Amino acid sequence: MDRRSFIKNAGLGGTAVAASALAAPAIAQGKKKLTMVTTWPRGAAGVWDSVMRVVDSVNAISDGTLEIEPKAAGELVGAFEVFDAVSSGQADMYHGADYYFINQHPAFALFTAIPFGLTAPEMMAWYYNQGGMGLHHELGEMFNLKSFIAGNTGGQGGGWYRNPIKSAEDYKGLKFRMPGLGGQVVGKLGASVQNIPGGEIYQALSSGALDATEWIGPWSDEKLGLQEVAKYYYPAGFHEPGAALSVATNLGVWNDLTPQQQKAIEIASLEAHQYTYGLYIGNNGPALARLKAAGVQVGAFTDDVWDAFGAGTKEVLGEYMGDEVFKKIFDSCYAGMSSASQWMSVSDSTYTAQRARVFNI
Amino acid sequence: MDRRSFIKNAGLGGTAVAASALAAPAIAQGKKKLTMVTTWPRGAAGVWDSVMRVVDSVNAISDGTLEIEPKAAGELVGAFEVFDAVSSGQADMYHGADYYFINQHPAFALFTAIPFGLTAPEMMAWYYNQGGMGLHHELGEMFNLKSFIAGNTGGQGGGWYRNPIKSAEDYKGLKFRMPGLGGQVVGKLGASVQNIPGGEIYQALSSGALDATEWIGPWSDEKLGLQEVAKYYYPAGFHEPGAALSVATNLGVWNDLTPQQQKAIEIASLEAHQYTYGLYIGNNGPALARLKAAGVQVGAFTDDVWDAFGAGTKEVLGEYMGDEVFKKIFDSCYAGMSSASQWMSVSDSTYTAQRARVFNI
Repeated sequence: MDRRSFIKNAGLGGTAVAASALAAPAIAQGKKKLTMVTTWPRGAAGVWDSVMRVVDSVNAISDGTLEIEPKAAGELVGAFEVFDAVSSGQADMYHGADYYFINQHPAFALFTAIPFGLTAPEMMAWYYNQGGMGLHHELGEMFNLKSFIAGNTGGQGGGWYRNPIKSAEDYKGLKFRMPGLGGQVVGKLGASVQNIPGGEIYQALSSGALDATEWIGPWSDEKLGLQEVAKYYYPAGFHEPGAALSVATNLGVWNDLTPQQQKAIEIASLEAHQYTYGLYIGNNGPALARLKAAGVQVGAFTDDVWDAFGAGTKEVLGEYMGDEVFKKIFDSCYAGMSSASQWMSVSDSTYTAQRARVFNI
Repeated sequence: MDRRSFIKNAGLGGTAVAASALAAPAIAQGKKKLTMVTTWPRGAAGVWDSVMRVVDSVNAISDGTLEIEPKAAGELVGAFEVFDAVSSGQADMYHGADYYFINQHPAFALFTAIPFGLTAPEMMAWYYNQGGMGLHHELGEMFNLKSFIAGNTGGQGGGWYRNPIKSAEDYKGLKFRMPGLGGQVVGKLGASVQNIPGGEIYQALSSGALDATEWIGPWSDEKLGLQEVAKYYYPAGFHEPGAALSVATNLGVWNDLTPQQQKAIEIASLEAHQYTYGLYIGNNGPALARLKAAGVQVGAFTDDVWDAFGAGTKEVLGEYMGDEVFKKIFDSCYAGMSSASQWMSVSDSTYTAQRARVFNI
């Protein structure tokens, strides 16, 4: 299904939605069944674990009154169609990365990751404590959604390249996969940016349709087999310092749930944010060690490349500041990030540096 | 109530517990009411927020079938009596910091914080992903408890001092409040270590019973008023790089809950771990700025002081390694910490350093 015909069929923005083969909430014998469409290949390391964590928690907590059934990308709708499917009411919920939906509204990027933005701990600080969750709801409700963060990949790697990145010049003409605003930044550096779902990356890289890509981190990337088709890897990146995943429920469906069911979805989604973050950071270290042992060349971008990322980021973010909603959410996000960083830069950073010096860990 | 008479009354280790004024699970009109005793002063910033997060989530999710009623330290039993009260069945649950109970078993320290141990993100990685949660249950069950982490303070500050710490020598004879294994480490440096509950610190410091103290971080410490009685503050410490809080339920009470109610307590507790961490790191930065403005002298320990902390830590940890349970959990904990650090030291650390360099955040 292509995007255009899907949106047409979905009747986005209309109030009357045609009868559809897609699941609508079904109530049978006191049980409500909700269909969750996702942006992920079934079983993909980390992201699919996050889907199942939410589903299993909600199903267990709700004691049979609610059952969420997850669908992988392509099983009901394509990866990037989930937003419109849920917004229009053709599916009940989605699990995905909100920055896939910057064409619906650029501010969705702020609830996944933006260049030089929040780490996962900073996202936790902002979301709970400095307005993040309320703004996520405000933005979602503009599109008929009730949104919660529901996973985090931690800091994402700077990507896989066939040839090493020696200077910012090397991005000129590079066919590179990077979604969200990060992709727009490398576009400013001259890259030919493509945004394709995870399930299609390996093929694109091995066919030469891509020269380089980022996906998530060593653990997930190893499972996609990216080390077989690109040998240079950069563990630190500017583009997704802590990419959150989201669960969004159609607002009409949400409003029909009991307060108990709503709270179950809220707490289960939020808990999955931490759970998924734990999975990623726990698995990335051993995966990186295996990748090195398998011959992957692990490097770090030079300061001049980071400076170019910084200049591109200023330019891209500046382009969105005319949008009132984007600017409001961005300002809140940056205030949250700065508050957390003000502490962690003198506390945690000093601690981890001293632990490395004294204990070599 | 002093500790000795409490333990005697509680009949710890016996199977027949005398009738007591303390709440036992009450079932009335289909509702089960559980009493949660805590180690915290009512309303204490962060820790009490964590208590209320767990309580509110469970009460909302369980739709009236379960109601947890929290009690501050001293309301039913004293702060450090909660473990024995719940273990013996005189109270249903506790919310506290498990390292208060190293006299019951030293391995409880590993589920709060140990010197040069896990940061909060590393705790998330270990707990979910590398055996931490299963080991917490194993240890708890030895004491008739079902345990979950339920809060995290993030990195704790190195403490408040009347006089600056210029070298490790300055700990000699210092009357210092620090609980857990960290306290034992500064004991090796010659400090006279005392472990008193949060509610009593201000008074002890202002009366001269203490020369110095640590509590949590700028946000909580400011609310205790510690800046009024000690002027030198060290934001980075070795002793609690990410102190987890726990909820533990009496095992008999736990086994009488429905699977739905058990899952509600599990997911609500785990979600509160992230929530509380978000509160602390979001509030510590602004609090630190206010403290500086109020004349607090903010410093950093020299490498020689950190080296002394390191030497003391090796000595203290070594003393526990003869305990099979401690060693098993310690080894798992360190493996989890090393895996996570292996990734974060080349990814997140590089990112935050470059963000600071390029954007000054």
